[in-house]
Amino acid sequence: MTSRTRHGLTQSEMLADVLRAVRQNTPLVHCVTNYVTVNDCANIILAAGGSPIMADDTREVAQIASLCAALVLNIGTLNERTVPAMLAAGKRANQLGRPVVLDPVGAGASDLRNETLQDLLREVRFTAIKGNSSEMGFLAGGLASARGVDADAGTLVTEDNLAAKARLARELSTRTGAVAIISGPLDIVAGADKAWAVRNGHPLMARITGSGCMTDRKSVV
Amino acid sequence: MTSRTRHGLTQSEMLADVLRAVRQNTPLVHCVTNYVTVNDCANIILAAGGSPIMADDTREVAQIASLCAALVLNIGTLNERTVPAMLAAGKRANQLGRPVVLDPVGAGASDLRNETLQDLLREVRFTAIKGNSSEMGFLAGGLASARGVDADAGTLVTEDNLAAKARLARELSTRTGAVAIISGPLDIVAGADKAWAVRNGHPLMARITGSGCMTDRKSVV
Amino acid sequence: MTSRTRHGLTQSEMLADVLRAVRQNTPLVHCVTNYVTVNDCANIILAAGGSPIMADDTREVAQIASLCAALVLNIGTLNERTVPAMLAAGKRANQLGRPVVLDPVGAGASDLRNETLQDLLREVRFTAIKGNSSEMGFLAGGLASARGVDADAGTLVTEDNLAAKARLARELSTRTGAVAIISGPLDIVAGADKAWAVRNGHPLMARITGSGCMTDRKSVV
Repeated sequence: MTSRTRHGLTQSEMLADVLRAVRQNTPLVHCVTNYVTVNDCANIILAAGGSPIMADDTREVAQIASLCAALVLNIGTLNERTVPAMLAAGKRANQLGRPVVLDPVGAGASDLRNETLQDLLREVRFTAIKGNSSEMGFLAGGLASARGVDADAGTLVTEDNLAAKARLARELSTRTGAVAIISGPLDIVAGADKAWAVRNGHPLMARITGSGCMTDRKSVV
Repeated sequence: MTSRTRHGLTQSEMLADVLRAVRQNTPLVHCVTNYVTVNDCANIILAAGGSPIMADDTREVAQIASLCAALVLNIGTLNERTVPAMLAAGKRANQLGRPVVLDPVGAGASDLRNETLQDLLREVRFTAIKGNSSEMGFLAGGLASARGVDADAGTLVTEDNLAAKARLARELSTRTGAVAIISGPLDIVAGADKAWAVRNGHPLMARITGSGCMTDRKSVV
Repeated sequence: MTSRTRHGLTQSEMLADVLRAVRQNTPLVHCVTNYVTVNDCANIILAAGGSPIMADDTREVAQIASLCAALVLNIGTLNERTVPAMLAAGKRANQLGRPVVLDPVGAGASDLRNETLQDLLREVRFTAIKGNSSEMGFLAGGLASARGVDADAGTLVTEDNLAAKARLARELSTRTGAVAIISGPLDIVAGADKAWAVRNGHPLMARITGSGCMTDRKSVV
């Protein structure tokens, strides 16, 4: 595209600038995340030019968050240890003004996940929230038939339901103050006032685990 | 083979039917498993046409198990949190009549693993139990020299000891009510009355971690 | 090189002997390690000819350590469960005279890591300690600007600072009794009296996660 951003750059130029800055600064990214896709998440941060650190003990998360340029909270395999660790890391990153990303894996699938999400959304200000269409629908208070950690085919973003899904994302953004990202073959990236459709996904991405989790990191570094 | 099953189908036709059903239904598979091979296990479920969800906190496992078509319990990296989670998930899946698979990783290697296996076998009815020859030998009450998580070369199933190993598997099936699967270069799949040798393994499979753990999932989805 | 070792073998012959012995004996290696790179660590042990077992519950680590030929402690994702498990496993391996390797991942990044390292170095005798230049600098009591789990570019071993880094490694070896290994594009392997530079690294190794963690295992099996 050639539309100019408010900085007077084309979007490609802006993206090139961002990537260049990441590679120059090698930002440390703190992840409190699940143990299923954690290795891929570390590697995607390295590939993007950042440096990952995974730490999830309450005794160290605030200190680790202080060292880092950004924080990612991913609730894929929550447990009694990691819930308080996420809250502590998130609050510290907020105090320091660092970006915090939430991936609400499996939102709607259990009371533990739902209550944890309520606690996180009440206690931590997120810069971005990124989930699949089932998870984001659940968070937006919609009637998503949340069934697991993979998006339900019935709720995927398509050209047909694009307007409704974009509205849902904008509402979630308004309520949380975060950029709301619905990932899938067709992605939506929304602020409170405006939403973009990103058409560079591929259905095959749903055939490996972690393609969503890795997106969290790409949006951070 | 062209032998007919009791449904009047050849075995190849039956396998094709099963795979087609999995791909149509995308069954959710709940895994309480180890963190060493968990990523490969998630991917093998996706590759087979299912959808994986890993969850191991006692506060959510019964609810997650309720959402799922099947459950896999793998004791590879047991801890004080996951032992009660396995029991709770297993009991719930039993109540709902869902298939439950056990992978007794490292059976015989520690009291914690052995006591956990005793608890699991007493409290949960398994549909299938799949381990390597050392682990299954230990479970069957034999004299396996269980030494770790990889099969001891001295206990591998070979053409020479096939009859004895098949008897051991049938006895374990009789005692537990589960299909007993001994994995290795040569696999045995046994019910109480009958055992099959499956000659499609390869010694190289033992040279990567997780080839056994991934088999659990193939037997589920 | 053709310099003879004290056994009268060239270094290549000695290496060949070691590899042959590993492949003949398939030593079990117990790892109490992080969940980020654990899968790669299991595979590198298998690739080298060993057999990995990961176990980190305090109720079984002493027993598992007893079965094993060697132990690796890696503090990458420490938690309240794994700190006592590392101490228990290390003490047991010491009692049995088995080699114990320490990877001080993220040394200097948090009080939890630093206090755990102090406890480990006080309670366990290590055969080898292997970290990147930031971590080893911190352990040696230097002024490393420990910033995360990846080596800070400013502290990397180079041809220019080789003598100073070798001295640091020898000092750490003198204080701990362990072989001290600084990994990076250029590695240092040091005893109390002598240090070697190993020039077979590659900057790309820092672009994937786990290349350091995998080195732990290569030094064990």
